[in-house]
Formats: sequence, structure tokens, C-alpha cells
Amino acid sequence: MVTAMTLKAAVAGGSGYAGGELLRLLAAHPEIEVATVTGASSAGELLGASQPHLAASPLGALEIASTTPELLAGHEVVFLALPHGQSAAIAEALPVDTVVVDLGADFRLEDAARWEHFYGGTHAGSWPYGLPELPGQRPLLEGARRIASPGCYPTSVALGTAPLLAAGLLEPDVVVVAASGTSGAGRAARTSLLGSEVMGAVSAYGVGGVHRHTAEMEQSLSGAAGVPVAVSFTPLLAPMPRGILATSNARLREGVTGADLRAALLDAYAAEPFVVVLPEGAQPTTAATLGSNAAHVQAVADPRTGRAVVTVAVDNLGKGAAGQALQNANLALGLPETAGLPLVGVAP
Amino acid sequence: MVTAMTLKAAVAGGSGYAGGELLRLLAAHPEIEVATVTGASSAGELLGASQPHLAASPLGALEIASTTPELLAGHEVVFLALPHGQSAAIAEALPVDTVVVDLGADFRLEDAARWEHFYGGTHAGSWPYGLPELPGQRPLLEGARRIASPGCYPTSVALGTAPLLAAGLLEPDVVVVAASGTSGAGRAARTSLLGSEVMGAVSAYGVGGVHRHTAEMEQSLSGAAGVPVAVSFTPLLAPMPRGILATSNARLREGVTGADLRAALLDAYAAEPFVVVLPEGAQPTTAATLGSNAAHVQAVADPRTGRAVVTVAVDNLGKGAAGQALQNANLALGLPETAGLPLVGVAP
Amino acid sequence: MVTAMTLKAAVAGGSGYAGGELLRLLAAHPEIEVATVTGASSAGELLGASQPHLAASPLGALEIASTTPELLAGHEVVFLALPHGQSAAIAEALPVDTVVVDLGADFRLEDAARWEHFYGGTHAGSWPYGLPELPGQRPLLEGARRIASPGCYPTSVALGTAPLLAAGLLEPDVVVVAASGTSGAGRAARTSLLGSEVMGAVSAYGVGGVHRHTAEMEQSLSGAAGVPVAVSFTPLLAPMPRGILATSNARLREGVTGADLRAALLDAYAAEPFVVVLPEGAQPTTAATLGSNAAHVQAVADPRTGRAVVTVAVDNLGKGAAGQALQNANLALGLPETAGLPLVGVAP
Amino acid sequence: MVTAMTLKAAVAGGSGYAGGELLRLLAAHPEIEVATVTGASSAGELLGASQPHLAASPLGALEIASTTPELLAGHEVVFLALPHGQSAAIAEALPVDTVVVDLGADFRLEDAARWEHFYGGTHAGSWPYGLPELPGQRPLLEGARRIASPGCYPTSVALGTAPLLAAGLLEPDVVVVAASGTSGAGRAARTSLLGSEVMGAVSAYGVGGVHRHTAEMEQSLSGAAGVPVAVSFTPLLAPMPRGILATSNARLREGVTGADLRAALLDAYAAEPFVVVLPEGAQPTTAATLGSNAAHVQAVADPRTGRAVVTVAVDNLGKGAAGQALQNANLALGLPETAGLPLVGVAP
Repeated sequence: MVTAMTLKAAVAGGSGYAGGELLRLLAAHPEIEVATVTGASSAGELLGASQPHLAASPLGALEIASTTPELLAGHEVVFLALPHGQSAAIAEALPVDTVVVDLGADFRLEDAARWEHFYGGTHAGSWPYGLPELPGQRPLLEGARRIASPGCYPTSVALGTAPLLAAGLLEPDVVVVAASGTSGAGRAARTSLLGSEVMGAVSAYGVGGVHRHTAEMEQSLSGAAGVPVAVSFTPLLAPMPRGILATSNARLREGVTGADLRAALLDAYAAEPFVVVLPEGAQPTTAATLGSNAAHVQAVADPRTGRAVVTVAVDNLGKGAAGQALQNANLALGLPETAGLPLVGVAP
Repeated sequence: MVTAMTLKAAVAGGSGYAGGELLRLLAAHPEIEVATVTGASSAGELLGASQPHLAASPLGALEIASTTPELLAGHEVVFLALPHGQSAAIAEALPVDTVVVDLGADFRLEDAARWEHFYGGTHAGSWPYGLPELPGQRPLLEGARRIASPGCYPTSVALGTAPLLAAGLLEPDVVVVAASGTSGAGRAARTSLLGSEVMGAVSAYGVGGVHRHTAEMEQSLSGAAGVPVAVSFTPLLAPMPRGILATSNARLREGVTGADLRAALLDAYAAEPFVVVLPEGAQPTTAATLGSNAAHVQAVADPRTGRAVVTVAVDNLGKGAAGQALQNANLALGLPETAGLPLVGVAP
Repeated sequence: MVTAMTLKAAVAGGSGYAGGELLRLLAAHPEIEVATVTGASSAGELLGASQPHLAASPLGALEIASTTPELLAGHEVVFLALPHGQSAAIAEALPVDTVVVDLGADFRLEDAARWEHFYGGTHAGSWPYGLPELPGQRPLLEGARRIASPGCYPTSVALGTAPLLAAGLLEPDVVVVAASGTSGAGRAARTSLLGSEVMGAVSAYGVGGVHRHTAEMEQSLSGAAGVPVAVSFTPLLAPMPRGILATSNARLREGVTGADLRAALLDAYAAEPFVVVLPEGAQPTTAATLGSNAAHVQAVADPRTGRAVVTVAVDNLGKGAAGQALQNANLALGLPETAGLPLVGVAP
Repeated sequence: MVTAMTLKAAVAGGSGYAGGELLRLLAAHPEIEVATVTGASSAGELLGASQPHLAASPLGALEIASTTPELLAGHEVVFLALPHGQSAAIAEALPVDTVVVDLGADFRLEDAARWEHFYGGTHAGSWPYGLPELPGQRPLLEGARRIASPGCYPTSVALGTAPLLAAGLLEPDVVVVAASGTSGAGRAARTSLLGSEVMGAVSAYGVGGVHRHTAEMEQSLSGAAGVPVAVSFTPLLAPMPRGILATSNARLREGVTGADLRAALLDAYAAEPFVVVLPEGAQPTTAATLGSNAAHVQAVADPRTGRAVVTVAVDNLGKGAAGQALQNANLALGLPETAGLPLVGVAP
């Protein structure tokens, strides 16, 4: 619905998967109107051709433009869904009072040395980290003009584990194994991502702590714990288009029980619209979060080994990317935080 | 959002797949509030346990009640998502001024003999057939108190082929092969529907013209053509949770070209919000309609064999079931036809 | 097992999907030894890196060479699993007494005009068509030095429909809709074949009778029927790596019953090791043929519409490509026809 | 091939997934002939109806009998693929010189207390544990008359981690997260395992160290390490019919490098036909092992966190169940260990 009060948005990178999901959400947003969509190799195509799921929407008739700061300027909010490393130059050229939400990694890390270790190249700086559910984080995002929206894996891990570390229930040495759908690997054509290769297959990649999201996880969890937290992260590619199921495993601090874990989660998320602590005995499944901005979390103690197992399901393109970016934009723009964001997954 | 003006809805069969999708849509509907959800074996469970995708919604905390007419009465609209044969008794017991939308087959066929041929047992009668895009059909649904919402396969086939038959472009002898996701087979536990069995598998079932939806297709297409249309229908089970891709093949009438086919579709759907005639050269894919109420259609002539091939993608739980039921309820209740109905699919 | 009597084979195109499956089968063949594997962009790689499923086999340590006639010469049998259009030049340069089995299309069509209509370019000629189960075909393959191994779709369609047309049970106007797994589209990286795009999706392609396999189907079926048979063919892409489920629909000749259809199939395949006519009431599923050289077939009459529905499942890389090529090589080399060919599918 | 020397086999539980895979392998075994197949609810059915992948094999025509000791006696080898708890009574009634390979858990654990903790009920005793690649294990299996074939998860974990623990490279505190295809959950109809539920979904189950395979893992790893090893195990259900991808994470002992890890694996498996240590930089994928008895393993050090990540892919029905059972039977019967066991996976 376009009214006089509607805020105008531009989406840079609208032909990728995160961009496509963002456009889906924005198409139903009550107060934001998509005015401009840009792309690289897709420039000149109609959006409905590049993103067939938009064909039935008025957005389908938009022509994708080339990504330039000039074109992106003049909107109340600009979403950058670009390959890593491309956001900084564009963001610099945008007016300081434009809300810019970066779905890429360029501004997520505060520590330049860690940036260089994991990403190489020069650190562009850091913006407020757009995970509103982290302790103390929301006020930094309300009214902000620049937000670094988190990565998909770090979102899932932090939502499950940060409250437990903040409550001092876990040792700061976390083993993370998280399975992701293939859309997390992007839309560029690669043989290893062909349907023929990935259907029927689970495989690990980025093994040995080299996945760049490790740095982001450690930053969030260390912030929550108040002490440095080490994360040994192994990502898995799973045969589904979307979804992340993250498991985090850490030693319980002396005397901590499963009830303590659950109490900490329930306490942290009592007022959070997008995070559901599942009932005892239930485990999250990615399918239940598909297409939504919800995160389903659970924590269980394994008293025999003295360890906690925290499990979280999100849609990597929802709460893990586009949904969260929109949640951040809502906060920045002073809109209701939940505007345009589904709570309910598309299942089965 | 529940306001004083909100209409109250009951959903019978809320723990099945169509019911679950309907609840997802209703959770975001601007003017309808779900007040009651009933089930059979799931009665007594919380909705969020039975349908984990609803866990993050307030609906998740609703308790599923047992399906009785008494409980269903007292709502502005009642949706029946029940096994075939159970709707008639319940509908009879509901007030005549309650809007009742039946997602089952009980009231879809006008002809008692055809009912008995395909379904066996006694014909319960017929209600206005809830496919608003059929020529002349929408006025019968506006303000109606009883609507028989169509089956998933017949919806997909009629949307593609009815306008072409109505325009006299095709011979009335149609070969239909349609592939469906597994949710079309329902949520009851059966070995043949286990993930281990269906993943990696395409198979035919109900072969030889015995699938009950055949009768519904012939009724719709004959109505559009003005002459009896024979349909030889073969359904396929495809390894995906949702979606129907229907192909209809019929001889072109003398002199008819591909351009004629497309013109007839474009003409029929120029003002329809939910039906997209894809650009020439594009073919529908089920993924692009997932979670939406959209239908993507295309028609191509094969001049070498003198035949037309019409292809349609819908979400079997969307436009093929719950979405369409809600579209019908909107029409019956005098709400905007598109209220609460996504146009955009969840893809990838 | 390599013995003095072992026959040496070369596989050109060993890094593609058909090549990879052929190597899997040859790795277990009792009388053929793979001596040479060639590729294009994969030349120089170890086979186990290019085809990880071969890693545990001695074949995994073979280095992929560049495809040249010189390298391919000097083997008892050469398999060409090359992109269409590349076989002719290579085959010409190979000794006339070398058995050459072409998995590509170059030599499948007898009619130059049809070749040019469907493929464009110059017709290279035709070789004996390697579908041994076609009436009268096997003797042409026994001891042959050049064999054109059929396409996947035409194999599935001909196995189901040729015996019925040969027996005069069907009208020569066949509507074919066949769903294929994604490996049929090859291993080259394309966005439209990414796992993210194809999982959860069924779509049609090559609609309107333009798929090149149409010509091959009409050639086989016309040969069997003794009259020209028209085929209106619509292929579907299904979300699985492998498998074809083909449906063929044609009018029954006057008085023909379902029992007649089944009798004709049972009669045709009584002595065929690889073709199973399923029991009445059972329908083929692609999963049951995965990895095997088997074809599962069924035929049903739809007396209401006077039509037959014939359904066939094969593995597109098995009986549809590599398995059939090996079956042809066995025939050409005078080996037992079933040597090295699994009858049993890998299911679930 | 049935010769005078062929050994006769009986398979109890032939209508389940492990039984079906075992029959597939036995159908191609050069020296074992399947004489008897038994089942419970499937008794009386033809094997080809219960297991359609066997339809093209002579085995398809076998009738499934009811499982009784009388019927199973009189074979050289009896495979028990029964629900846990049913093997003991049957095994006791079989002649002591019959080779009995149990695919169930009844005889896998040596420690009665651990049995009771994880399984409840009375411990039936223990048989030689059929993982021939464990240090010192093969001699216990050669010529054995009773073998407890391992579980799928424990096989995958032990193959990757046991050599590293045996070499003293890891601390004895292992975090295991392993994703399995759905066939591991069996063939009994359950709503939670419907294709509609599992496709597109990854979920955890048995969280908190309660999965029974934990005991088996700890037994194998403790045996290898020579000290008690604690395992915190979280299984994931992945949307594929088959395959296990296991990740094991443990602290590196002081000074241990990634090269040390790989050297230990290469040393352990230099002469093992079924275990492939992948080249540095390659990671296992379940798809490459499908249908084979191969295990693909890799180990990587994460020097930043001082941890090792060991990854293993097997087919849960292959090396994880039926393949391993057959490997054990070969050892027991004095046949070549690799007889009838594929090394090459069915991919894509």
C-alpha cells in the first residue's frame, strides 16, 4: 500500500537470494515501498524474470538497474545485499541521514585484526551490529543510520548461546556445528552447488575454524559472556534450499542444570516477538521457520558428560538475512519492529 | 490485529496440512481472527505442538478442541478442512447465515451420478464452486453462505485450460499429467509416504482415470467449453512437500496458433490478481508459487503435432487449498478478495 | 579384476554424470578394464577428485587425460560420453574394428531432415540404435562396431509404448509427459540448475514439441508401429538427482482392454532381463530403479476416455545412459549381455 | 550365481531398510545365495512387492515368511535385521555353528550397566563387535559364529576418531554431531517421518546424550584410546534417504598438528579397502558413498582453538548397516572380505 507517508526503499543486489527474500517481505510491508532495485549482471532484466516468485506482484514489472550510489541515494532506506567487500564504497557515498542496512560482512567486526585474519584486506570499520535480541543491543539500533546486519550462522548461534553465557552457565569454549540450506552459498553458478550434487548430500566445508562467521560468533558471545569465548565452528551443507539448524555444545559450569538453561532462555526472550523457546522435550526444525523471521531455540543439559547442547532453527534468508535486515530497518526508521515480518513458517 | 470489527473464524481440521496453511494465512489476515481450532486425534494438544510452524504466533497457544457443530457455530466463518465425507453432517448443523467454506470434496460435484461413480456413497448435494477465476463464477461466490472450495489438481488444470476451451481453441479431449508435492496426500502416517520412500522418487498413482479429481476437472472444463470435455488424468507424486505442476495437452482447433492461446489467457486474466500469464518463453515452476495464492500459467502450441501444451504451477496448499478457501471466504464476507493472501512465493 | 583376457576400455567424457556412472559400472565389470579416461576442462585432475564417488576405487587414482582420437585408439571398446556434436569427428578417427558406443545423439537419427529440424547442422549419419529390447534390434547390435546408444527419455518411452504400438493396440498419436532428475541436464554450472533452484521445484522445459528427444521417440515408435507415430512430448524437471518417470497416453484401438495391454507387455518382455512388467495394480517409481539397468513398466486402460496410460521408470543414468551403453558394449563384444549390470535398484 | 559351493543365507527382517539393502548386496554376491527371507507384518507378501527395488531380480519372486528360529536354521549364515530386543531369543535357538550376524544392538555392548542405562531391560550379553577396521578387531571376527554388527553412527564416528585416540593425539572428550538420512529411522509409518515433514528440514533429536549409540561410541573409542572417552553426541535428521556425515570435535593434545592427524589416519587405513582418507583440502560428502561400503574420512586441526575436527561420510545402510554386516559375514565364512561389496558410490 503506497500512501503519502510510505517510506521509499532501494535494494541493491536484488537478484540474489537475500535480495529476493527482502523484496518478498517488502512487497507486503505496510509502510515501506520499494522504489529501486539494482543488480550487477542482472541489470536490465525485469525483476519478475530474475526472481520468478515476484512475477505476480507489481514488483515483478520493475526493471533492475545497475548498482550506483547515485541511484541508491534519495531513499529513506537502502538495503545492501552485495558480495562482501562492495558495501563500504557505496555506503560512503550515501547521505549520512539515509538509513543503510548492510546484509554483507563489511561492517560487522569491531576488531580490525580479526577482520584481517578472517577476511584479509583492509577493515572498513564497524557499524552497530544488528542483532536486536543481544543484551543491550536494541537501543543502539533504534534510530541508527547505519546497521551491519549479522550473518546467518552467527545469528543462530548467538540467539541460542548468548543468554546462557551472559548468565554464566557455560564455559567459554563452544563447539558449534550448524547445517545450512544451499541458499546460504548464494546464487552464482557453481558445479558443486548444482542440484545433482547437493540433493542427497550432507557435507562439511570451511572445516578447521576458517569460516569467516567464526569471528562474528566469537565477538557476539564474548560480548555476552564478558570474557573471551572460543568457538570451534564447523558448517554443514544440507540438501534443502533454506534453513539453519545450529548446535552449540559447551561445558556446563559447576552445578548448572537443564532447568537453569531453560530458565535463562525463557527469561531472555520473554518479551521478544521473534524468538520462541520451545517447550521442554521439543526440538527445533528448520522447516517450521521457513519464510519467517522466527527463531526456535532449545537447550538441554547432558549431565553424564557435563555439557549443554543448545539448538536453534532459523531461516537463513529470514532471521538469518533479509528478515533481520528488515527488523533492523524498522528499528532505525522508528516503525513497529515487527512490521512486515512473518512470525509463522511455511510448513510443510 | 483483533479489533471490534474483526470477524471470528473457526477452523475444523486444524492439525492437517491444509488446516495448518489456513491458520498461517489467517494469522496475518487483517480482518479475520481465529477463535476456534478443532481436530480429531489432535484434540487436546496445543496448536503450536501439533503445527510447529505456528509456535511463534499467538495461535500456537490455542488448544485444539474436538470437532463438533456446537463448537463451530457462533463464528462468522467456518472452514472445514476435514477428510472427505465428514463435511455434510457438520455443515447441516451450522446456522444458515454462517459462511461455511468446505475444503473437502463433499459439495463440489453437481452431478449425483458422477459423484457416485468417483466417490461412491450418497451425493450430499452441491454448493457454489469456489474457483472465482472461472468465467461467470465470482458473482456466485460474493456473499455466498456455503462454498465448495475446489481440489488442488482441478484448480491448476482449470486455470490453464478453461479459458482456452471457452474461447473454442482446443478440442474437448484433454490429457492431463500433473505432478504434486507430498502434502497433497495428507498428514496421516503411511509407509509409502515416508521421506525415505518419496525423496528421490517420482511415481504415478491413481492411473487409468480413477482419480476423483477427474470428475471435478471435467465439470469445470465442460462448463467453460459448453460441450462435454473428456479428461484423461494421471497424477504424479513428486519429491517436494508442496506444489503442483500441471500439464494439459489437447488438439488445437483448426488454424489456432500459439499466439491465439496466449491472447486468450491474457484476456481472461488481465484483471485477475492471482493469475499470472508468464512472458512468452518462460515456464512456470512450482517453487515460485510456494506459500502464495498465485497461479503461474503458460500455453504453447506444438504446430508439428497440432497440439497445445498448457502448464500451470500453484501451491497445492495455497491456491490449491487454503489460499483459495480464504479467497472464497473474503468474497463471501464482503472483504477485499486479496486480503491476507500473499502474491509472492517463498523462493528459493 | 584384470586378467590376460580382460578387454581394455576408454571412456571419453569421464568427468560428466553419464561418464561417472559408466566408470562406476565398469569398476565392477568382470571382463572390462578401464585403461583410459579423458575429459575437457577436467583434464589433468585425478578421477577421484573429479568424481568423488570413485575415490575408494583404484580408478580414483587415474589421471584424466585430454580427449584425443590418438589416446582413445588402442582399446577394445571406446565409450563417448561427450557433448552432442563432438562424437563424429572422434569416431571417424578410430579404427573400424574398435567397438565405439556413443552415448551422445550424433548417430541416433536415420533421417537427415529430422536431424536438421531438431538439432540443426549437418547430419553425421546413423549407427545401429542401441535399444536391444526393441523388436528386431538386438541382432543389429551383436558384434556391431559402432552403436548409437539412445537418449534417456526415448528409452523410457519406447520400452513402455513400442510393444503396444507393435501389437496394434494404440492409435499412433501419443502424448508423453516425462519427469527427469536433474542429472539429465548435465554437470555444467548453471544458475537454473543450482540446488537452491531445483529443490522443491517441478517445472516444464522444452515445451511445445521442441525437445530433441522427440525425434528419437517418433523414430522408435514409428518403427515399432509400422506407421508414422506422432509424439507430443513435454519434459519435466523433478527435484531428484536421477530417474525418469515417463507417462505415455494414447487412444486405445477399438475393443482393446487393459488386459490386452498387459498381455502385450508381458509377451514382449518375458525373456528380457532388464525390463519388469509390474504386477497389476503396482506403479513404477524411479527410486526402485536407481543405480540399476532395470526398467519398470506398467500399462493401464482408462475405459471411460478410451485411452491407455503407460508408465515407465528408469534411471536416466542407468538404462537411460551408462547402463544401456554398457549393455550395448557387452552385445558388441560378445560378452554376456548382463555382465556388470545391476538389476536391483538402490532404495530407499 | 548359484553353484554347488554357494553358501545359503537367511535374512530375518527383509522388509525393512537394512534388510532390503542387504538383499540388494546379496543378490550380487558371488558366493552367497539368499534362500530364505522373513518378516513380521510383511509375511506372505512377495519380496518384490515389499521391496520394489528387487522387482527385476529373481529375489523379487521370493515369498516373505514369518520369522521363526526353525525357518532360519539350516543356512550357513543368518542375518538378523530385527527391531532391537528381538535378536537374543532367536539367536539362542540357532545352531552354534551357524554364522549369525546381528544388525541390531542386542549384543553390541560389553557392559551390562551401560546396556541398562541406555537401553533398559536385561543385557543379553555381548558378541564380537563387527567393526573390522578397529585396532585388533579383525582377528576376532575371522571365523566367528556370532557377530554384533555396529550401529550406523558409531561406525562413522569410530572410523574417524579411533585411530587418532589410539595414537594419543586427542583429549578423551569428544563432541559428536552427526547428520543422518531418514532411513536410519526405519520403515515404520510415523507422521514425523513423512516426506512432507522431513523434506526441507534439518532437526536434532535424542539431544542431551540420550541416544543409545552414545554407549557404543564410548565403548569403541575408550577401547582405542586405552582410557575412558566421554562422548557428547547430538544426532541430526537430514532431508535425504541415506547417508551419515559425522563430525567429531576434540581438543588436540599438546603440540599435535593437522599433519599428525592425517598421518595417523593414513597409517591406520593404508591397507583397508573400504576406508579412504581423502586428500588434504577435500571433505567427505555422503552422496559419494551412497550404496557403497566405503567410508570417506578427513581430519583437520583448528590451531586457533586447539581442536581437531574429524569428518566421516558413510552410507548408513551400507558401511553403517548392511554392507558392514556382509563384510562381517565374509570374514566369518572365510570368504574374501570385499566379496559382493561395492567400493564406488552411486552419485550423483
